[in-house]
Amino acid sequence: MLLSGSLLLPAAVMSQSHHGYPIDPVPFTSVHVTDGFWGQRLDASRNVTIPLAFSKCEESGRYQNFINAAHPSDTIHVGGFSFDDTDVYKTIEGASYLMQTYPDPALDRYIDSVLVIVAAAQEPDGYLYTARTMNPRHPHEWAGAERWEAVEVLSHEFYNLGHMVEGAIAHYQATGKRNFLDIAIRYADCVCDAIGDAPGQVARVPGHQIAEMALAKLYLVTGDKKYLDQAKYFLDKRGHTSRTDAYSQAHKPVVDQDEAVGHAVRAAYMYAGMADVAALTGDSAYIAAIDKIWDNIVNKKLYITGGIGATSNGEAFGENYELPNLTAYCETCAAIGNLYVNHRLFLLHGDSKYYDVLERTLYNGLISGVSLDGGAFFYPNPLASEGQHQRKPWFGCACCPSNISRFIPSLPGYVYAVKDRSVYVNLFMSNSAKLDVDDKELALSQSANYPWNGDIALNIDKNKAGQFTLKIRIPGWVNNSPVPGDLYAYADGKQLGYSVSVNGSPADGHIEQGYYCIDRKWKKGDKVDIHFDMEPRVVKANDLVEADRGRVAIERGPIVYCAEWPDNDFDIHSVLMNQSPRLRVTERPDLLYGINTIETEAQALRYNDQGKLVADDVTLTLIPYYAWNHRGRGNMAVWLPIDVSAARAVSAGGE
Amino acid sequence: MLLSGSLLLPAAVMSQSHHGYPIDPVPFTSVHVTDGFWGQRLDASRNVTIPLAFSKCEESGRYQNFINAAHPSDTIHVGGFSFDDTDVYKTIEGASYLMQTYPDPALDRYIDSVLVIVAAAQEPDGYLYTARTMNPRHPHEWAGAERWEAVEVLSHEFYNLGHMVEGAIAHYQATGKRNFLDIAIRYADCVCDAIGDAPGQVARVPGHQIAEMALAKLYLVTGDKKYLDQAKYFLDKRGHTSRTDAYSQAHKPVVDQDEAVGHAVRAAYMYAGMADVAALTGDSAYIAAIDKIWDNIVNKKLYITGGIGATSNGEAFGENYELPNLTAYCETCAAIGNLYVNHRLFLLHGDSKYYDVLERTLYNGLISGVSLDGGAFFYPNPLASEGQHQRKPWFGCACCPSNISRFIPSLPGYVYAVKDRSVYVNLFMSNSAKLDVDDKELALSQSANYPWNGDIALNIDKNKAGQFTLKIRIPGWVNNSPVPGDLYAYADGKQLGYSVSVNGSPADGHIEQGYYCIDRKWKKGDKVDIHFDMEPRVVKANDLVEADRGRVAIERGPIVYCAEWPDNDFDIHSVLMNQSPRLRVTERPDLLYGINTIETEAQALRYNDQGKLVADDVTLTLIPYYAWNHRGRGNMAVWLPIDVSAARAVSAGGE
Repeated sequence: MLLSGSLLLPAAVMSQSHHGYPIDPVPFTSVHVTDGFWGQRLDASRNVTIPLAFSKCEESGRYQNFINAAHPSDTIHVGGFSFDDTDVYKTIEGASYLMQTYPDPALDRYIDSVLVIVAAAQEPDGYLYTARTMNPRHPHEWAGAERWEAVEVLSHEFYNLGHMVEGAIAHYQATGKRNFLDIAIRYADCVCDAIGDAPGQVARVPGHQIAEMALAKLYLVTGDKKYLDQAKYFLDKRGHTSRTDAYSQAHKPVVDQDEAVGHAVRAAYMYAGMADVAALTGDSAYIAAIDKIWDNIVNKKLYITGGIGATSNGEAFGENYELPNLTAYCETCAAIGNLYVNHRLFLLHGDSKYYDVLERTLYNGLISGVSLDGGAFFYPNPLASEGQHQRKPWFGCACCPSNISRFIPSLPGYVYAVKDRSVYVNLFMSNSAKLDVDDKELALSQSANYPWNGDIALNIDKNKAGQFTLKIRIPGWVNNSPVPGDLYAYADGKQLGYSVSVNGSPADGHIEQGYYCIDRKWKKGDKVDIHFDMEPRVVKANDLVEADRGRVAIERGPIVYCAEWPDNDFDIHSVLMNQSPRLRVTERPDLLYGINTIETEAQALRYNDQGKLVADDVTLTLIPYYAWNHRGRGNMAVWLPIDVSAARAVSAGGE
Repeated sequence: MLLSGSLLLPAAVMSQSHHGYPIDPVPFTSVHVTDGFWGQRLDASRNVTIPLAFSKCEESGRYQNFINAAHPSDTIHVGGFSFDDTDVYKTIEGASYLMQTYPDPALDRYIDSVLVIVAAAQEPDGYLYTARTMNPRHPHEWAGAERWEAVEVLSHEFYNLGHMVEGAIAHYQATGKRNFLDIAIRYADCVCDAIGDAPGQVARVPGHQIAEMALAKLYLVTGDKKYLDQAKYFLDKRGHTSRTDAYSQAHKPVVDQDEAVGHAVRAAYMYAGMADVAALTGDSAYIAAIDKIWDNIVNKKLYITGGIGATSNGEAFGENYELPNLTAYCETCAAIGNLYVNHRLFLLHGDSKYYDVLERTLYNGLISGVSLDGGAFFYPNPLASEGQHQRKPWFGCACCPSNISRFIPSLPGYVYAVKDRSVYVNLFMSNSAKLDVDDKELALSQSANYPWNGDIALNIDKNKAGQFTLKIRIPGWVNNSPVPGDLYAYADGKQLGYSVSVNGSPADGHIEQGYYCIDRKWKKGDKVDIHFDMEPRVVKANDLVEADRGRVAIERGPIVYCAEWPDNDFDIHSVLMNQSPRLRVTERPDLLYGINTIETEAQALRYNDQGKLVADDVTLTLIPYYAWNHRGRGNMAVWLPIDVSAARAVSAGGE
């Protein structure tokens, strides 16, 4: 049932006329994750998140909207948002990825039944937008009186197309069935026909981006260049239609943009689309623009958790270096978008620095968006709390839960990549994979207890490709800095170490674009042992980040730590770190699905009855940031005072 | 030789047609200060500051400029600034006030000789501006090619007029001689003829204000209303000529202004001129505008020292609540201007709140501008230092030293005021004074050790006025708050107390506009004992003042205290105040010309060798702010951390 290797449609395979990314990702269909850490997340996704999402689609009337659209009447659209259809598409997308790891005929049949009602809602010319179709005379108030009329404002016709295409491609790749893909192609064709500068067309750009990257993906799958052209049209046209605001990144032509601004999810999706166009066309203006925007983000607008979007005001990027902690917005969807951007830039440039940002986002600000059991979600992911934050089982605007539904199961698609005779190992987790190297079969597997342990064993299980270069990503946190650029640095300037051996002997490799490259004739049974020093690290932020001034954060491996109230018998907001903190790591398999905690001697500050400052010796216990808020509401902080001027003292009366 | 009572010119006295202030100030000529605190300052002024200022005028070529102007040639103006003439006028002004307290025939003759060369520099039509007159073909680069051409920019023709008039009036009042006054009247007439909207006149406003209040004073002395009209013209016209910038308060008509902005000295002088026009004409638009501006200053832009002008950028007011300490500009001239504004608003409204600001400015941010020995000067008066500040013997731009030269000796003119049958006692210092009450003679004297002691004895030495109301100012710091408005408040909300007795029995008075009023038939030998509680107070700033957040200041009586390095064996920038500090007062007649210090138990914060915070118990010693920087450069702070978040800790290695 499942495809392996190339996922192109037969016609596209035959034509070979289109170009893919400079580097080919190894698709999720080729990687079987057997990992402890991610296995728990995938289980939770399968057992809780996806069933929850489907049940929410049912009970919130999202299916009913499709049924009603199949029989247009004076029905009123159920649910508040003109993009509610996408929750159905996104959940199918996530379920499709999952079925790769966990074949599930019942789920497969359930999805097929859902797709029957989706198909029924499609108008004869391919248009599929229940918010209008169910009641053409009185469409949803956001939909506009006519098609495309309000698509640059609140009508999400292109946004719905984008998620439909993303979901349909995943479903096709996972199942080999075209029942969803054909629906999506028909809607995509409808949009391609209607939108443009030719006579009879109207010029429109998406009010909320995503169609750009979805159409690029549809080009990759079908080989039909018109979808890539349409994606580029949406981008080229941006700023030249009725919409010219920075909130939606329409304040200037996209190739002239050099700063991440506006609504962070819109922005990240657009930047991912720009990276697609840059990578798939080689357009130098696009490459220059997206490189500048990425530089801006990593140097001035990236939270240490990989989160983006500093402010709830417009769910938007803040000013340069504006990175508040308590009020950090860091929407889960924006973290996912940030991951998309960095994945595509890796596929374009092949530098490990993009995966450094991707991994940081993945292990911290992205998975914090969903509870460990898969059943509760953060919309914003703040870096500090005074007890006002709590994951919730769902949201009326369900973008974040349904985005989690589709992202987590897609993880296997981010582990490897191939370019000619080079194999990139980008993420570390137990898995087995089948790759095509120069059209020859390569099977390899990883055995790891990452992120808790820095020793990864990589085995060549089968190799018909002969000599090739194995490119092992050496994470930036090992030997230079937490992230590219100068936004964060290690407080003590210390570098960690790493080592790589092949079959027990030190490997004879070299570093290239951040990868340790071993070029040899690999054979079945070869074993590569990778070691990363996992010493905890003290990180400080650029002094221009006011919110982090006089503070440090603690990291270990790819994990950002935080202090949370249940682990400490003093107010964690009254803590003062030791000037040169010594950090101890403790394995806690019993705690929060198994974590490593970090302990350090610190001080808790209070004013005594006589009004004098007392600095009590305390042991501060830290947990992974992603694991916070599983034991009730309360105080939490990622950035901890190390300078007394950043500290707070508790009053004698208590606080 | 010295005039007493009315200082009007005979013609003005006879006409009686002009109106003065609603309340009449008792002039410096009527008050003989015998005080310890102020006597020391007046001695320093007489023995050091004034001789220094005259010698600087000589050695820097300021006299030479007048001599050269008497014989125009191709001479180059000596010294850098087109307002250098004013240093001569200002020093004569100060010397004139001094001669009232300390008759000095030699000084009198010296001034007469200076006035001979000043007179010689005056052009036939009264124009007196050495920067042009000495070399009409190539005037000073700031002067402009023609008269008045650059007066709104860098040519200080009106500024020079203003200081000339101020100096000439003081000289006339002190000596009864008209040799300076006649020069000033001739130049004033020249300006009144040339400037205006009538045919043949040009419309100009001062680039640097002061002529407004000087012309108002010339009106008061001569009774000629044209000078008041000219002052009002300068104000009315402001914003309607070529100059429309906020730096010079020309951004909108003065009666529409409601926020203190721009260059602080220009601003304060203009506001004083506006208060003059408001008080002398009763113009309701002027009264409303100056009241709003005053409200803005005291509620949002006033340092606790009475200083104004937060930023060196444009020597200007900052934004509302922008009151940095280390970089506070608080120019000495601006403090003097602030005092002028408040004096005039008292003369208009009769409320003690204006004297609360005046007294605060006088005892703190103004006299800090000159060293105790009278020989060194601050241009800015910061509220914190890390050792970069040091008083200097003089400046190329000598405005501040020469302003101190004229202000300190003028102090006796600020002690009393009279309105009908009310006598205001506004400042407390040992003195004897002769007042006119309803044209009858009243002699009274104060015996005080203020500001160190809160007991003041006031004696009626002679009274031909019979029944009148004695109005004793109860300083705002006694019973409500440090200054009017909500910019500062007492940390513990506590009020102090006061008492007044007459001839040993509790007085039967009442409070009116902040004054304790005793209405009785006073007779020679009556003794009024005034007592103010002098308990030290803990002051906090409005939370909107970021620089003072988490900090407190200590005051006692009218004196603001500071911590300075020589009195403390720890880094005063590492101090943390006790949450409820207990403050002890110690008399130190041996220290800094005799002060009271304040001691309190506090903590000094440091990081020890193990990188932990240690809060050492220390005794913090505070001295009056005005007295700092007499023992070398070093750390100083007015606002002291009481919240740990405002504190600093010293590193183990030392700082």
